[in-house]
Amino acid sequence: MSAKPIDAAPSAYAYPLLIKQLLHTPLATSPEQEIVYADKCRYSYAELNRRIGRLGHALSALGIAGGHTVAVMDWDSHRYLECFFAVPMLGAVLLTVNVRLSPEQILYTLNHAEADIVLVNRDFLGVLEQIRPELTTVRQFVLLTDDETSLPAGFAGEYENLLAACPDRFDFPDFDENTRATTFYTTGTTGLPKGVYFSHRQLVLHTLAVTGALALMPQQGSFHRDDVYMPLTPMFHVHAWGLPYVATLAGVKQVYPGRYVPETILKLIEREGVTFSHCVPTILNMLLTAPNASQVDLSRWKVIIGGSALTTGLAELAVRKGIDVFAGYGMSETGPILTLAQVPPDADPDAAPHVATRTRTGRPIPLVDLRTVDAEMATLPHDGSSPGEVVVRAPWLTQGYLKNPEASEQLWAGGWLHTQDVGHIDADGYLQVTDRIKDVIKTGGEWISSLELEDIIGRHPGVAETAVIGLPDKEWGERPLALVVLKPDAVGKVTIQEIQAHVRAFAEQGRISRYGVPDRVEFVEALPRTSVGKLNKRLMREQRVSG
Amino acid sequence: MSAKPIDAAPSAYAYPLLIKQLLHTPLATSPEQEIVYADKCRYSYAELNRRIGRLGHALSALGIAGGHTVAVMDWDSHRYLECFFAVPMLGAVLLTVNVRLSPEQILYTLNHAEADIVLVNRDFLGVLEQIRPELTTVRQFVLLTDDETSLPAGFAGEYENLLAACPDRFDFPDFDENTRATTFYTTGTTGLPKGVYFSHRQLVLHTLAVTGALALMPQQGSFHRDDVYMPLTPMFHVHAWGLPYVATLAGVKQVYPGRYVPETILKLIEREGVTFSHCVPTILNMLLTAPNASQVDLSRWKVIIGGSALTTGLAELAVRKGIDVFAGYGMSETGPILTLAQVPPDADPDAAPHVATRTRTGRPIPLVDLRTVDAEMATLPHDGSSPGEVVVRAPWLTQGYLKNPEASEQLWAGGWLHTQDVGHIDADGYLQVTDRIKDVIKTGGEWISSLELEDIIGRHPGVAETAVIGLPDKEWGERPLALVVLKPDAVGKVTIQEIQAHVRAFAEQGRISRYGVPDRVEFVEALPRTSVGKLNKRLMREQRVSG
Repeated sequence: MSAKPIDAAPSAYAYPLLIKQLLHTPLATSPEQEIVYADKCRYSYAELNRRIGRLGHALSALGIAGGHTVAVMDWDSHRYLECFFAVPMLGAVLLTVNVRLSPEQILYTLNHAEADIVLVNRDFLGVLEQIRPELTTVRQFVLLTDDETSLPAGFAGEYENLLAACPDRFDFPDFDENTRATTFYTTGTTGLPKGVYFSHRQLVLHTLAVTGALALMPQQGSFHRDDVYMPLTPMFHVHAWGLPYVATLAGVKQVYPGRYVPETILKLIEREGVTFSHCVPTILNMLLTAPNASQVDLSRWKVIIGGSALTTGLAELAVRKGIDVFAGYGMSETGPILTLAQVPPDADPDAAPHVATRTRTGRPIPLVDLRTVDAEMATLPHDGSSPGEVVVRAPWLTQGYLKNPEASEQLWAGGWLHTQDVGHIDADGYLQVTDRIKDVIKTGGEWISSLELEDIIGRHPGVAETAVIGLPDKEWGERPLALVVLKPDAVGKVTIQEIQAHVRAFAEQGRISRYGVPDRVEFVEALPRTSVGKLNKRLMREQRVSG
Repeated sequence: MSAKPIDAAPSAYAYPLLIKQLLHTPLATSPEQEIVYADKCRYSYAELNRRIGRLGHALSALGIAGGHTVAVMDWDSHRYLECFFAVPMLGAVLLTVNVRLSPEQILYTLNHAEADIVLVNRDFLGVLEQIRPELTTVRQFVLLTDDETSLPAGFAGEYENLLAACPDRFDFPDFDENTRATTFYTTGTTGLPKGVYFSHRQLVLHTLAVTGALALMPQQGSFHRDDVYMPLTPMFHVHAWGLPYVATLAGVKQVYPGRYVPETILKLIEREGVTFSHCVPTILNMLLTAPNASQVDLSRWKVIIGGSALTTGLAELAVRKGIDVFAGYGMSETGPILTLAQVPPDADPDAAPHVATRTRTGRPIPLVDLRTVDAEMATLPHDGSSPGEVVVRAPWLTQGYLKNPEASEQLWAGGWLHTQDVGHIDADGYLQVTDRIKDVIKTGGEWISSLELEDIIGRHPGVAETAVIGLPDKEWGERPLALVVLKPDAVGKVTIQEIQAHVRAFAEQGRISRYGVPDRVEFVEALPRTSVGKLNKRLMREQRVSG
């Protein structure tokens, strides 16, 4: 194919998608709109822009330029928002440090990402002192503080003092939109933290797509110019889901809560009229059960829930408080938002509050090509039942793991980002994630949900508890092994054949594939668990494979 | 600066911004949503997708591939929407022919754009027959018809028949996002039509930014998933302002009205529940004064007005009918939307219906860097008064004129797209365009406002009236010529040198560039005017250049 390229006039501006470009509209239309930092300060978008300029100068004066890495360790603050813009706008990389990691992990991420400078809140000075001797690349430190903390030895300065000494206009340069803008680390259950990274282009496109997905809703699940935004997912965690960029582009009032303290957050929601947030289920639950929860009107509050599944129970509790709660789905690798569980505007009003819809995994936001695929990567139908791995393409997915080519290739095997989640999609486009892929048994070209098999086996009256794992099999790829703890009165009475017959009955009804009937069932006295009480399937597999 | 690039895993999908990517979300979430063509047919988004696939096959079978140009001559139809997608998705260029041009102009544009095939509505067969012998590049013709029109000689087939013979899945390829997707021609008051062109990337980004600008509004000036869309700006004119792409991405019901007949349009609005359109003032006026206008409830209808200024009178008339009317601004070269005159959500309700705001030129949509600049390209303040040329950068502006490098460079002089409009911006970011800059003289690399020169010359006590025009000059590009009508008592007393000295004094104060001092001043008895009484500068220029 010889497609016609765009012939550009030599002087034509080849507009790059840079984070600075997000500021044009809000600065033109909303220069007096407010940014609030807890009960500590408030200023206008015009002032935000001036402070971004000052920060550009201050970092430049400290030797920071394109290609350098600026690490931030802070609670959610106006300062963090300034860093979201000024650092990448310099062509530098913003490293958002997960302050909840252990000191050793923080040390690892700072060294692995080759941080040049650390901007650190006084609350984390203790952690920093522990690891400071072992930092291999950091040359400078800047103190972030809300009070009169004295400057530790070897620090270049305190943030506000540095800004105050600088002019407020900085001519941020143009550069390639594929320049890396941000980096942060994701921690799995095993192994070292893995770095993901996002370019200016990716962050701008995520901002536009999330804006579209939220704003297009007339009311439920919407984000509009009259909303007041406050993040409740930390800014170090996938750029607070990218919403600070969305809120800034929209020119809405923004509230940054500092350290998350439920009572304070509730007061901020009330005082500042917050209408839009996002958080993990735990935070929502903490807020709803805080001592002052009943005194705060939350009936204008919209909240996206992500990180883990929004349960029906929590959703019903929130909806009863008048909260417009709905699930979102994504991960560190996906920048993060892939789907939102918004209620269709034409949904039956008699079915309100549509808790079943709000708690699904969600529908793809603009530009997201999200599919469920079988083991051969063939796309599965939107039938609401066929389970498959969730694979995805979108313009803002990490293109790999930092300095980890092997994991990068696994992530992108076959040109699709593998979420390692298993689910199905229905006729209205709602994805429902049901399993992690490591809990799925791939046998005879089909995928059997171990969770579903466990549910079925658990319905047998003699079964106390059960765990199903997949074991390697030369002929079938994997075969399910069911470990079953019988109820005391069933021991010696219920047989393996009886359990298998019980499962086979469900297969004959079409509930699971006939390949799912376990040819191996073992009665055991107890199931191995992790320190937090979860079934330790990894250990079960290791014991069976090595033994 | 050595910015850190994104390191991509070899298998990572480098997601290009292609028009086909706009379809992912609506096909997942709204497969049953309706597309309506006047009173002739209606089908679902799923069927739209199948027909796009069939059209891909049909065009391929006719030899159309990447780099070819497919011209369409049709009224607004579902077929046109299918071409909006299938043609560029093949890597071919969609040439949207302005069917209102003269046959000679249509011939010029088809030959100049090197069209390979023409899809032509039966209503334009007469025009086509006139110019057919002189078409230099067109090899094929396809008939578009709603009835049993017989196939003219030499036609490859009729659209529906061609589609019916093809399979409904087509594997549209990936390619460079900077591939040209569309071309069309803009006609000024003089000279040949000029071709502008847009890439896939540009159309996707325009779609996302317009979606954001409209959807972020909570109510007034909004476009949400519960809207019903119908274009009333022809699809050949700047892709109907790009709104068919926005509507498709949003997955809303779409209505295509065919040929614009006011009574039919009003019936369609009522029958299909249309809530969102866009048109020029003339069309709105025709609708509001149509015989059946008073029988149709337009109180749920939102309309962007562009093309020429929305007058206070028309806005008031529309608002009295309950229509949410507001201005938009842009031009063929700008893809087109730059600004929208939406009412801020926090506007004083006592000032409703905010006609003064709705009739302004508007505020920039996301990513648009719009400035007013002086003759030295210095940015002017947002003070609501300082007039300057409107220059703009956005990711979707034509990068030049087709095969016209000279005009392309003029369009992009200094790296900014010159709108040739003059206006001012206020503290809330509203642009108000006041004038065309054709009254500006380009000389010595600078732009001199003839309006300002006229104002200066007019301050001389002996001057009754004056007009300043630019005449071509080999050395300077243009040079100003001042035509001056003296007051009766100044005739024979005031000299040319005196007028020049008068202007030079202002130049020395820095009010205008020294290049602005006209080296040619002519005393005349009267100034030529147009039939509506405006200074006829075109005639003045022509008389001087040809004479």
